[in-house]
Amino acid sequence: MIKATIVTIGDELLIGQVVDTNSAWIAQQIIALGIEIKEILSISDNAVAIVEGLDRATQSSDLVLITGGLGPTEDDITKKTLAQYFDSELYFDEAVFNRIQRLFTKLGREPLAAHHQQAYMPRKADILENKMGTAPGMWFEKNDKVVISMPGVPYEMKSIMTHAVMPRLENLDNQNHILSRTLCTSGQGESQIAEQIADIISNFPAEMSIAFLPSKASVRLRLTAKGKDADSLKQMLDQVVEDISSVLKDLIYAQSDEKMESSLGKLLLEKKLTLAFAESCTGGFLAHKITSVSGSSRYFLGSIVSYSNALKTDLLGVSPQTLIQHGAVSEETVVEMARGCLAKTSADLAVSVSGIAGPSGGSPEKPVGTIWIAIAYKEQILSKKLTLSKDRQANIEYTAAIAMNLLRKFVLNL
Amino acid sequence: MIKATIVTIGDELLIGQVVDTNSAWIAQQIIALGIEIKEILSISDNAVAIVEGLDRATQSSDLVLITGGLGPTEDDITKKTLAQYFDSELYFDEAVFNRIQRLFTKLGREPLAAHHQQAYMPRKADILENKMGTAPGMWFEKNDKVVISMPGVPYEMKSIMTHAVMPRLENLDNQNHILSRTLCTSGQGESQIAEQIADIISNFPAEMSIAFLPSKASVRLRLTAKGKDADSLKQMLDQVVEDISSVLKDLIYAQSDEKMESSLGKLLLEKKLTLAFAESCTGGFLAHKITSVSGSSRYFLGSIVSYSNALKTDLLGVSPQTLIQHGAVSEETVVEMARGCLAKTSADLAVSVSGIAGPSGGSPEKPVGTIWIAIAYKEQILSKKLTLSKDRQANIEYTAAIAMNLLRKFVLNL
Repeated sequence: MIKATIVTIGDELLIGQVVDTNSAWIAQQIIALGIEIKEILSISDNAVAIVEGLDRATQSSDLVLITGGLGPTEDDITKKTLAQYFDSELYFDEAVFNRIQRLFTKLGREPLAAHHQQAYMPRKADILENKMGTAPGMWFEKNDKVVISMPGVPYEMKSIMTHAVMPRLENLDNQNHILSRTLCTSGQGESQIAEQIADIISNFPAEMSIAFLPSKASVRLRLTAKGKDADSLKQMLDQVVEDISSVLKDLIYAQSDEKMESSLGKLLLEKKLTLAFAESCTGGFLAHKITSVSGSSRYFLGSIVSYSNALKTDLLGVSPQTLIQHGAVSEETVVEMARGCLAKTSADLAVSVSGIAGPSGGSPEKPVGTIWIAIAYKEQILSKKLTLSKDRQANIEYTAAIAMNLLRKFVLNL
Repeated sequence: MIKATIVTIGDELLIGQVVDTNSAWIAQQIIALGIEIKEILSISDNAVAIVEGLDRATQSSDLVLITGGLGPTEDDITKKTLAQYFDSELYFDEAVFNRIQRLFTKLGREPLAAHHQQAYMPRKADILENKMGTAPGMWFEKNDKVVISMPGVPYEMKSIMTHAVMPRLENLDNQNHILSRTLCTSGQGESQIAEQIADIISNFPAEMSIAFLPSKASVRLRLTAKGKDADSLKQMLDQVVEDISSVLKDLIYAQSDEKMESSLGKLLLEKKLTLAFAESCTGGFLAHKITSVSGSSRYFLGSIVSYSNALKTDLLGVSPQTLIQHGAVSEETVVEMARGCLAKTSADLAVSVSGIAGPSGGSPEKPVGTIWIAIAYKEQILSKKLTLSKDRQANIEYTAAIAMNLLRKFVLNL
């Protein structure tokens, strides 16, 4: 099996100013080719660290994928270090420069001196065209090892991977297969789920392994089968998925790696139902989740984000009396918000949310993290109170995830 | 200077199913103590990889911070491996188990067998209390090296870092100082900014370095000064910040590492202006950005997310004639949306957005990525057309970032 190391270069990673999202994306792509990832390494943007990283990566792996350090600004020395590492001089590549120039012409601007520098390429590298930016990727080979260098800007890296790297990697020799499946659950914690399927796991064939991947209000179960025979691996996976599904039932919202908002969208389309929101503490985040799915306009009408009490009354018809008597964070208010939302938007289903996201703003009776959700459908109303944490961002994300799961279960029973 | 390596453990990182956000957070905390981060390493959840990782990290660094591999499910073997590595047996810790039991009592549940396992601790480790979950952290010391192990769940790790790790790290010896400052800009690209301040950079003192950190519609300039004398480093930084600011002027929206939504909020508070949105293609994301700031209810009233054309008319008063004649994605429509939003919400300022986020839905005259933004203030209207990419998520994020910067500049001129 081909082993790979991913190396991300940049001081911005080591000082924590940028989260490395490139590695996860690259990993997802290359494991689909049956390549095993040995490790992911983030290092400093200096020659010593780069050489050390390359030495180590090429010792443990057959394939090294590097991102970062190729931008036009002067803190970038990766290309020079790579050229030296592969004992290769730099030359001015006319074709690369012409492409950079065309890119600038299109934007109505002139290339700068820094972009001129980007057209100097190591002779021993195959150039990987960057359709989205100025820094090309490079493909080096030495002693049966492949080292690929790409810019760190995610959409440039993704474009180079997709168009230039993946087609070549698909042709590398590889005897082993890795198949994997993901089951997405929502509604219970990691330990509770693990206990329910403990018997199934203890009877796993040797080729099979499971990982529990908890995130906000959901746990994904990643099943992986490794071996020589793809057909028998597939059969094993199918059987395990069937066994687990029969135990976990409607805790499972998707039998593939799918986001809740996408699953929910399919369910609404299938049931031909339209949806609208009346949001307060989630501040538009619930609508954002739903509309992050392309084509969501087929079932999602909109959201009235009534952050102020005045807008709860003016836009949703919540009675001022209710707000005074019970407060904005109350069952009475979310029920009126949901009913008002149905009336104002003519949606089939309305979900409303009001709560104290924090970190400040709580009281002894309504501490930070108190959140009310309501679902309205015709004359039916379902309401639920959540008691979450003091972390604003976490509360917003959890509330959206729980509201979507509540809605999914509600719609399944219609 | 103390050198640190961060090690994150988990196959979910190596298969790309989880993005490692822990490392960036930990890095930010510990560099503030003047600790230098040598590298960040993500490895597999098996004994061989963990031992290899520990060997390497303790060779190159004085301090090793590990996250992951301590959850209650059976794919976790980190604790056993650490115990062996430090030649330490496991014992059942009553105090740890009592804490786990109290946590479950609070949730009205019973601890499972897996949680019983979590109370077995290596004798040679100092236990770091986990206030947010069941797996405690561990602090090992051997041959002047410190190895700290924490669970991978971000809020549990953050709680342990904050309460148990940082206070102890602050007391470690350290002779060197690292000071840094961040300038946040919006409105120009990395290269254009670099060219404008090239002279300043080429005259930097030896102690000073700069990194350009581009993100959606903004570039942060990270200035770092390293040396023995904190006072002179601070003076150097102040001077460089002053020099750069005098060149970049209002491209700089914050003289500290601050998000645009937070800067904008302060500006609105200062000018005593209230804000509302009328969103179509951003689908609530603009409102989410603004409300991600605690206290935003002091200036933000709400957002009317009119995803369907019917709601543009019903909730915002956009004339059906305008929608038919010019389409939902047009200057005419966003202007009516912004004016309608002012009228319906009584906000001082309204921002409206309508566009084709993609990846499908474009036409030859209005390709995917065509987005209109308008700002309304009393009788004033400002409108702007953007031509972005085919990437839905990127378009939504860019549009929100550009709209906020446009609003910032508009408000600065009021």
